[in-house]
Formats: sequence, structure tokens, C-alpha cells
Amino acid sequence: MEHKILLRETDIPRQWYNLAADLPTPMLPPLGPDGKPVTPDMLAPVFPMNLIEQEVSTERWIDIPEEILNILYRWRPAPLRRAVYLEKYLKTPARIYYKDESTSPPGSHKPNTAVAQAWYNREFGIKRLTTETGAGQWGSALSFACALLGLECKVFMVRISFDQKPFRKHMMAVWGANCVASPSTETNAGRKVLEEIPDTPGSLGIAISEAIEQAVTDSSGQTRYSLGSVLNHVLLHQTIIGLEAKKQLEMAGEKQPDIVIGCAGGGSNFAGLAFPFTADKINGADIQIIPVEPAACPTLTRAPVHYDFGDTACTTPLMAMHTLGHAFIPPPIHAGGLRYHGMAPLICQCVVEGLFEPRSYHQTTCYDSALTWAKTEGAICAPETSHAVAAAIDEAIKAREEGNDKVILFNYSGHVLMDLTGYDDYLSGKLSDYDLPEEELQKFTKDLENLPPAEQRKSGRW
Amino acid sequence: MEHKILLRETDIPRQWYNLAADLPTPMLPPLGPDGKPVTPDMLAPVFPMNLIEQEVSTERWIDIPEEILNILYRWRPAPLRRAVYLEKYLKTPARIYYKDESTSPPGSHKPNTAVAQAWYNREFGIKRLTTETGAGQWGSALSFACALLGLECKVFMVRISFDQKPFRKHMMAVWGANCVASPSTETNAGRKVLEEIPDTPGSLGIAISEAIEQAVTDSSGQTRYSLGSVLNHVLLHQTIIGLEAKKQLEMAGEKQPDIVIGCAGGGSNFAGLAFPFTADKINGADIQIIPVEPAACPTLTRAPVHYDFGDTACTTPLMAMHTLGHAFIPPPIHAGGLRYHGMAPLICQCVVEGLFEPRSYHQTTCYDSALTWAKTEGAICAPETSHAVAAAIDEAIKAREEGNDKVILFNYSGHVLMDLTGYDDYLSGKLSDYDLPEEELQKFTKDLENLPPAEQRKSGRW
Repeated sequence: MEHKILLRETDIPRQWYNLAADLPTPMLPPLGPDGKPVTPDMLAPVFPMNLIEQEVSTERWIDIPEEILNILYRWRPAPLRRAVYLEKYLKTPARIYYKDESTSPPGSHKPNTAVAQAWYNREFGIKRLTTETGAGQWGSALSFACALLGLECKVFMVRISFDQKPFRKHMMAVWGANCVASPSTETNAGRKVLEEIPDTPGSLGIAISEAIEQAVTDSSGQTRYSLGSVLNHVLLHQTIIGLEAKKQLEMAGEKQPDIVIGCAGGGSNFAGLAFPFTADKINGADIQIIPVEPAACPTLTRAPVHYDFGDTACTTPLMAMHTLGHAFIPPPIHAGGLRYHGMAPLICQCVVEGLFEPRSYHQTTCYDSALTWAKTEGAICAPETSHAVAAAIDEAIKAREEGNDKVILFNYSGHVLMDLTGYDDYLSGKLSDYDLPEEELQKFTKDLENLPPAEQRKSGRW
Repeated sequence: MEHKILLRETDIPRQWYNLAADLPTPMLPPLGPDGKPVTPDMLAPVFPMNLIEQEVSTERWIDIPEEILNILYRWRPAPLRRAVYLEKYLKTPARIYYKDESTSPPGSHKPNTAVAQAWYNREFGIKRLTTETGAGQWGSALSFACALLGLECKVFMVRISFDQKPFRKHMMAVWGANCVASPSTETNAGRKVLEEIPDTPGSLGIAISEAIEQAVTDSSGQTRYSLGSVLNHVLLHQTIIGLEAKKQLEMAGEKQPDIVIGCAGGGSNFAGLAFPFTADKINGADIQIIPVEPAACPTLTRAPVHYDFGDTACTTPLMAMHTLGHAFIPPPIHAGGLRYHGMAPLICQCVVEGLFEPRSYHQTTCYDSALTWAKTEGAICAPETSHAVAAAIDEAIKAREEGNDKVILFNYSGHVLMDLTGYDDYLSGKLSDYDLPEEELQKFTKDLENLPPAEQRKSGRW
């Protein structure tokens, strides 16, 4: 048995998988400020039309351009690994596989869509991209993609991460990008927040507002905005993860996974691995699919489904999703990439349909699992990824207790090498856990009453 | 043409290659303080006997224990990659291959010997290892190996790196090691230096003295010292790099490389790649083999060959090597792993024999090459590795100018993700270059007059 299951480049998937084609019920459309569905034209100042077409597509398979593959070959196909050392440590009969997305130069799965988005923007004649970043994984990924494709890149980085993770901005600078702390004084959205809360840790919602504002106010028309998660086309680009993993599981002699796990902030790494298996589940396969989120930002596990803005300044179209309210600023947990008030609408719809079983963990539980991982498998995972590791360990222990040789597959979404302060805090006993108090949840979701409700589709929360 | 040439685990080399078996003239023996060759027994308080046997072995092939392979599988075999994007950028007819040693969990080639050393120590009944580290790559690697093998680990980290690279100590802590800045107040050697130069940046030589002192003064007899480079057995363990690369070049359809390049501080990553090809060169193959060092610490390119101590406190046996003098403290360049006053005696002997063609570069040239690398190949290399990248780029340009489709192979010894401050300094224009003034060289090598000279073997510098 090999520890790594490696695909040849000639076996890389040549099409992305679009889950929208197979959903039991169609998606609720994004709405404009007037409550009416937005049209592609309305999104044109923000995104290039070729990506807007992907955003609204219901084609099941979408070809990956050869030039994009030629960039992805720098690190793809990514290895599927079997966590034999962890299995042995846990004395579990389960077979634990993980898709190693930490091997990209920026260290996470994010370049899968960053490269695609930069390429489509360049094809459309765009010269400059703006974006936001939480922990810095996405900002680094877009900087990397822009460097390879010759685009300018501007990154608004959530203040708390900007301060906690200084190496990330150096990394973006190596790839030629310009990164500033958000809220910044460069935009109206940023200045407004700074005026109200000068010492704010910032949030992804605020940073998104800033990046969109700077894109749409560029009078040259050559700037667009790029989002690292949440949207349909972003999740689409990530499905290469799950499509590779399916081939690799087959090479390893596994018919299908019993359990598929990914951490979920905006949802892109989770969806990237899970959606190809979700298709199998829709077609009757018995697969448990688990998005894992922080207890401090419990979007799927505790928030209602409602139409809400994707950003704090209410700039984006309204999307039907689980949301803690666009004004919610998550506590400064180390898993910066999971600090988002909403969640990808495609994922929310699957939760409503009963296809996924979301769960949440405290950060100390996650760091504890990450240490077990480091001392068995050897590598040190990102704090976001540690949420998936924690769930995989729990499932492997359950399999042992039940005497069940389940196949567990999870997404190892990134390493942590630019972000080791969280481990230091944990080892020094400085980390605390946080459960969102019910009254806080009520407070932030109360604003949703003024927005259109998401239509009742099922007996669930929808 | 695949960008990555991947070996299966079943094709991993099962023996290390020992260059000592094939040297044109035998090595000069290490000498004790009395000027007489040291015996294995004299090294016993420092190293376990099984490693001492490897140190003095002249067997050509030494079996790699199965248990060591089973640990190495976490990241080995390592990929050989072709730098197609850099080739295109340079418009060179050369084919540039690099052995990617950055894929180990600590991020460099160092675990190849760390795992072997920890394993042999454990076999010998040792419970605790002490060591020194420069940039932190070696300390991280030994911490990693000790975590996997259940040993305690103590790391003395050169002060300048300890301050510049805080994430390295967090990384070591994750793997359960204890890391302190050197010189420390924990040893006589450290206290002595601090008394004389309280604000010293430290050096590998001082840190080695501290680590050896703490190993040999442990009255339980269960502590030994572990060195990350220089010694024969360390270089031996690294030959898995070159042995894998030979198989992979063959898979890529290349008969042999024309040029083999590695950066050289103590010499282990360079030797690991180069020695299997050095054997071919001794047997008549036409291969140019280039160790690359910093101009600020020009051991092979400017220092005399002489018997000298490996550490500052004159604790180690005397070794015949190129040396800047054991009292030399290299300037605080970012490539901390290349800040060593001496060089592996096996490598020095090859230089004297005319088998290698050492060269040196300034750090700004190296960072400039590293940026070219990051914007073409995508990844961000360690400052040490950037020396090899600079030489590979120069050779590729030369091949273009000569219209020669040479095969260039270099060792991509590590990534930089815990150490991005050097890039920030470079991009902010804060980095300066340093050439060792001739009078400084004279000053530090003058002390060598009191030590036994290295025997004259060839008409060269020896």
C-alpha cells in the first residue's frame, strides 16, 4: 500500500463539475436592492462576463481551458494520501484518506480558483483585480495567480489577520501584489467603519465591501473584483479537488467514501471536495457529508436561512443563505478563513435538502487534533484545516467503537507555515473558546427582517 | 512531458551511497587535541556507536533500515520537477530539473538525516538529543524526527535567527522540542561568549559548542548530540536525494546531467544531490558539479584547507577542511543555514581533487533570482536555496548564449515560508551585500597556524 496516491498529469480532470445541474430543487436567485432577481448585466461592473456566465450556468460539465491546466500543473494533480500513521495511533479500523491541497505554492486550495479567475479576467481584457482576504490564504493565492498571468493585484486583508500574520503580506509582496489592512482609509466603506469602531478587528464582510468599491469605482473599466469563496463559479473551480480524489480513491481500490469532511467558512474547499460526491449521493449513494465550522461563527449549525448581503456595507446582491447577519463581526479566532457571516448558497441549499450534516467545533479542540496530527502524520495544518482533522479523528474513533472499517475522506485544505502564532497561543494556554450567545445571534439576525425571506421549500429551516 | 517526475514508493532507494568508498585518495582522519587520529571510542560520549560506525565506514553501499523508510514515506520519494516556466522565461535551450526537497513537513532536505539519526540513537537506547540550528531548518527537522520517534529534543538556535525567525521556535514547540537562543546561559560555552560579546548575533560554531556540552555532561548517559551537516554519516543519509534524482532523470529520458548545483553551508544538501553523480564523474562522466556559497561566508572559494575545530569553543575533533577559522562569526545574512566557518571534509577533499567548482554569490543577487523563480515557477524558496537558483539561472543563460541544450540539475533544498522577513528586507531595499575583507580572512585564519596543517596531497590549496 502506497502512502501517496498520485495521478499523472495526463489524468487531470479536464472539466469542472457544476452541482447546480443536479440539485433536487433549483437555486433561489440572487436579488437586487429592489427585491427583484439580479440580471447578469447588473453584475458586469464587478465581474467579467465570462465568469458571470459560469455563475449562472446550469451545465453539468464545464471545460477547463488548456492554458489554465498548464498553470495548475505547477502543483496539480495534488496527492491523495492515506493517514496510516494516524490510523495506527487511533487504533481505528477506518481507512482515512486526505486530499492534500497544501502543496500549492501559496499553501492551500485557493489557487484552484484564483488561477481560473485571473485567467478569465485577463481573457476579458481586465488589467487589475481587487479582493479581500481573511487569514491571507486567498490573498496570497490571488497574488500568486496574478503574478503568473501578469495582472495587478490589490488585497484588503482583515485587520486582525494583517496584524497576527505579518508573513502573509511579505508573501503577497514577493508576487508583486499590494496588500493593506482592512478597514482601510482608501475606501468609503472602510472609512465609515473606522469612524464608528476605530479599533475594530475587521471582518471579511468589511473587506469585501472595500474591494468591491475599489473595483467598481475605477473609471478606466479595467479593474474587477475577485471573490475567494461563496459564489457558484468559485465552488465550480474547486471541484477539481473532488474529481481528482474520486479517481485516486478508485486507484486505491476504494469503491466510495463513507464519510466526506471539509472545513467550511465561505465553503469553497468543502464544496470542492464534496460536490462530486454529493452528485453520487443525490443518485442514491450512501455517503455522509460533513461541513465543519467554528463554534464561534456557527453559520450552518445555528443561523437561519434568509436573504442577506454578502458584505457589511450592503454592496452585494442579496443571496439566500444561512447567515449570522451581515453586521456580525466574528470573534478573532485563529481560523481567520472561517470568520464569515454567511455561507455559499449552493452549500446552504444542500443543507436544507438534507444532503449535508454540518457540525461545529471549538478552536482548542481543533488545535488539540492538529497536534495529534503533527505528531503522527508529521505535517502542521492550518487552523481552518484543523476543523476537518478534528471531525476526521472523531469519526475514526467512532468507527473503532463501532468496529466499522469506514472509509473517511477529508480535505487537507492548507498548511499553516505562515501562521504559527495560533499554535504558540494554544501551547502557552492563551487560547479560549467562544460560543456565540443566543442573544447575540438574535441581535445580528434581527436586521434580516427587513430583507426578503428565503422561500419555504422544505420542512427544514428554509 | 510531465512537469513532475514522480517515483513510486516501491522505487525508493534502499541503500545510501558512501562516497568515501570511491575517493581517489583516502580522507585525512579527524585528530584529537593531541594531534593524533581520534578513535571511535573517543566519540562515544557524543554520538551513538552505530552512527560512529557509519562515520568511519568505507563501504560503498549501506542499507537503509525498513523502519526509517517507513518514516520517510511521509514525504519521500520527493518529486523531481522540470522548471519549464523558468526555461521559457529565460528563453534557454537548457533543460532545468530540480529535486524538490521542500515537500517534507519541516520544509527542507534536513529530515532525511534527522530521521535516520533519531532512529539510530533510539536503537542505541538514547532518550534525548541536543543540537544546534542556524535558520531553523535543522532544528525543526530534528524536532520533527524526535516527535515521530518518541525522543526528547533540545535545540540551541543561533541568536540572530532566533530573533529574525520566531515561527521556527513555534514549529519546534508543536513537535514537542525545547528551543533556546544561542549563546544561552545554560552552558559554560554560551556564558563565556555572552560575557565577552553580550550582543553577539551568535554563530553555528557557538551553538554546536553548547549542544555538545549539554550532551556530554548529562550524567545519565542517555543524551547524545546530533549534527545536521558536515559529518560523513550526515552526508551519507542525504544521498537518497541524488539516488532518487538519478532514477527520475532516467525516467525523464535524460542520460545524465551536464551540471549539478547545490547551495553549501555545511554541505549536506549539496552532497546529498551531488555525491551519486560525483561517483559517475570519478568514473569518467563529464559533469560539472558546483557548490554555491554566500560571498559573505566564502569557505570553499577563499578559505585555506587546514585542520580546524568544527565549533567555536574548540570542543570537536580537528577536521581537515576549508575553514575561515573557528573564531569567525559570519555577518548576519538571511541565509542562516550557510553561515558556517567550515565545510564538510568530504566536500573539501573533492574540491581539492578538482571534482567540484565552487562559486559564491551576494545575497541581493540571490534574492533577485528568487523573485524571478517566484514569478515563473510560482514557489518561494529559502534564502539558502536561492543561491542554487542563482547559479542555475546563470548556467541557463550561459547555455542560451552558447546555444547549448545542457541538462542542469539543482537541489531545491527548502522553502521559506517561516522566514519571509528576508524578502521583505530585500523588497524594501534594506539588504546590503558583504564581501569578506582580506584582512578579516587573514585575522581569523591566523589562529590555524597553531593547529596541525592538512597534508599536502595535490598541487592545489591542500
